[in-house]
Amino acid sequence: MSALRLEVALIDSLRSCVRDMAAYIPGEQPREGTFIKLNTNENPYPPSPRVLEALRAALTGERLRKYPDPVGMHFRQTAGRVLGVDPDGILIGNGSDDILTILTRAFVPEGGFIVSPTPSYLLYHTLANLQGAQFLTVPFTADWKLPSPWPIRSADLTFLANPNSPSGTTISLAEINQLRAAVDGPLIIDEAYADFAEDNALELLKRGAKDIVITRSFSKSYSLAGIRFGFAIGDPALIQHLYKVKDSYNCDVLSLIAAAAAIEDQEYFRIIRARILATRNRMEKALGDLGFIVCPSQANFVWCRRTRPPLVKAIYEELKKRNILVRYMNYEGYGDGLRISVGTEEEIDRLLAELAAIL
Amino acid sequence: MSALRLEVALIDSLRSCVRDMAAYIPGEQPREGTFIKLNTNENPYPPSPRVLEALRAALTGERLRKYPDPVGMHFRQTAGRVLGVDPDGILIGNGSDDILTILTRAFVPEGGFIVSPTPSYLLYHTLANLQGAQFLTVPFTADWKLPSPWPIRSADLTFLANPNSPSGTTISLAEINQLRAAVDGPLIIDEAYADFAEDNALELLKRGAKDIVITRSFSKSYSLAGIRFGFAIGDPALIQHLYKVKDSYNCDVLSLIAAAAAIEDQEYFRIIRARILATRNRMEKALGDLGFIVCPSQANFVWCRRTRPPLVKAIYEELKKRNILVRYMNYEGYGDGLRISVGTEEEIDRLLAELAAIL
Repeated sequence: MSALRLEVALIDSLRSCVRDMAAYIPGEQPREGTFIKLNTNENPYPPSPRVLEALRAALTGERLRKYPDPVGMHFRQTAGRVLGVDPDGILIGNGSDDILTILTRAFVPEGGFIVSPTPSYLLYHTLANLQGAQFLTVPFTADWKLPSPWPIRSADLTFLANPNSPSGTTISLAEINQLRAAVDGPLIIDEAYADFAEDNALELLKRGAKDIVITRSFSKSYSLAGIRFGFAIGDPALIQHLYKVKDSYNCDVLSLIAAAAAIEDQEYFRIIRARILATRNRMEKALGDLGFIVCPSQANFVWCRRTRPPLVKAIYEELKKRNILVRYMNYEGYGDGLRISVGTEEEIDRLLAELAAIL
Repeated sequence: MSALRLEVALIDSLRSCVRDMAAYIPGEQPREGTFIKLNTNENPYPPSPRVLEALRAALTGERLRKYPDPVGMHFRQTAGRVLGVDPDGILIGNGSDDILTILTRAFVPEGGFIVSPTPSYLLYHTLANLQGAQFLTVPFTADWKLPSPWPIRSADLTFLANPNSPSGTTISLAEINQLRAAVDGPLIIDEAYADFAEDNALELLKRGAKDIVITRSFSKSYSLAGIRFGFAIGDPALIQHLYKVKDSYNCDVLSLIAAAAAIEDQEYFRIIRARILATRNRMEKALGDLGFIVCPSQANFVWCRRTRPPLVKAIYEELKKRNILVRYMNYEGYGDGLRISVGTEEEIDRLLAELAAIL
């Protein structure tokens, strides 16, 4: 082996679509201090006590040393029963990001293209980059509806976050049906926040739709961002193919147990959901009173903008100095705003008091 | 929307490389019965008691409801200290399969090609399929060495499992250095089983090699197959790019805590390792005495073949009837054999007694 060879770094061997991507910048996840975290849409309440009980019972050397069930049958049967869908139509994922990655790898060739309305979840663009595909956006209308007619029929994959982030808005089932008719390829309805909305697209699947896939997350409504679990629901014949794309053991034994226990406790789910919706309503009104332009939200966050000083960026920075983290977002061609997660009543009291002081 | 549209299944939209793959067949992971499991190379001993303690302490609603550290800094600092490597050169993964997927997506374009000696880990072929790439194999020599000269210089990725599965054999650092000189692209040294071997390639990285990446698993030597954790070690400048390819939150909070606690307890690790190596030596001798052709193993399993009846497939089936699972493997152009994981002393007593009865 030549000494020279040692000097050859592998960076030149990276696919250009990877090498040229911007460096990864982790979100603000302060490990210390007493921050009020309203920036990543975590649930302010703990998961169901039954989740903690189930996890405690599962903490044995025997469980940990063995591989988990690769197809997560217990979770799928539980979720299928709770949601009224066929367990064979459920794909398990290491967070719903894993599910979105699996869908991208299944449907999008290198050089293909992904479409999404914009502004929306930033990951869709990243997934296109990683696949060596193009990312095309279709701007939402000013009131966060889809343009009619929908302009791009032949995408390899069309992502629709519903409710959308950062807006917290939804499009109706009637509009979704129009979109289905307007695209040839798969329509992925990313329902990470749907548990906080009035409606969702599950009934389309129950009526036999084979052209959509719905994705769900346990990070928000089930308070389990730490354990990484999400799933997809779709035509069982399709889901069977998607199992070939995932890592064989993509979900660990503890997350499968936690997720099954969480979705089984629908009573706790309803209590927490009602609490978050009540706080959200209070936030919307109070933020409006403080001079923000507030988008009526169907999610566990509120999107607010301003047209007059102080500008939202300055407010974001002032809040951070006061140990309150919210998400400042600035979209090219659209503008900026603050996406504020729904916290506990006490956290929102504090937020509103600090905002009143700043303004 | 036309009624017809509802009938359009998405299977036709799948990339052909995905649609045409064989259906996924999960490994035998019996959930019931009293099987002695010697088929998936799980560690027969539980993880360190410190892992269970750390997990118990981490089971709080506050931990579970929040996202984990996306870059796993605490684990990387711990592992860096224990292994004597730069934490910036460590990539965290949801099992080492996740790491192998990340490396494939980073380096292999659609239409590119992956090379590995064969017979070896079957996942390499699957990863090539999923990427829409070709998979080329280079047969090991009869005594499980690499052919000289190595025939394929320009692979997008060359995988070397070391120790290899199913053989349990290793190739030396001198041979690895010859291979490094013979390939232009990245050489991935898959060290899932290296903790059971006499040597590993870490020292090449410590001497500044920038052309290799080493992957490691917590599923075998650290008895944590259930929690899914693996990592890669490489040039920090390269690892920084690989962080862009992984899912942002690919490792959950509990697996990061378990992995850090496990690697910190090197005393427990050494005790368990010594026990497994002692049992392995006993297995090799006893299986040889029973008429198997046994490959001297550097891993936590033993590969054994037969040239005379009863054939290994019949033995595999007989053992299964007696509630002992081993792995029957049959490689095109190479032949078949049994890969038998190193179990506890008692499990191996039982295995050997049943084998004696069968033969």
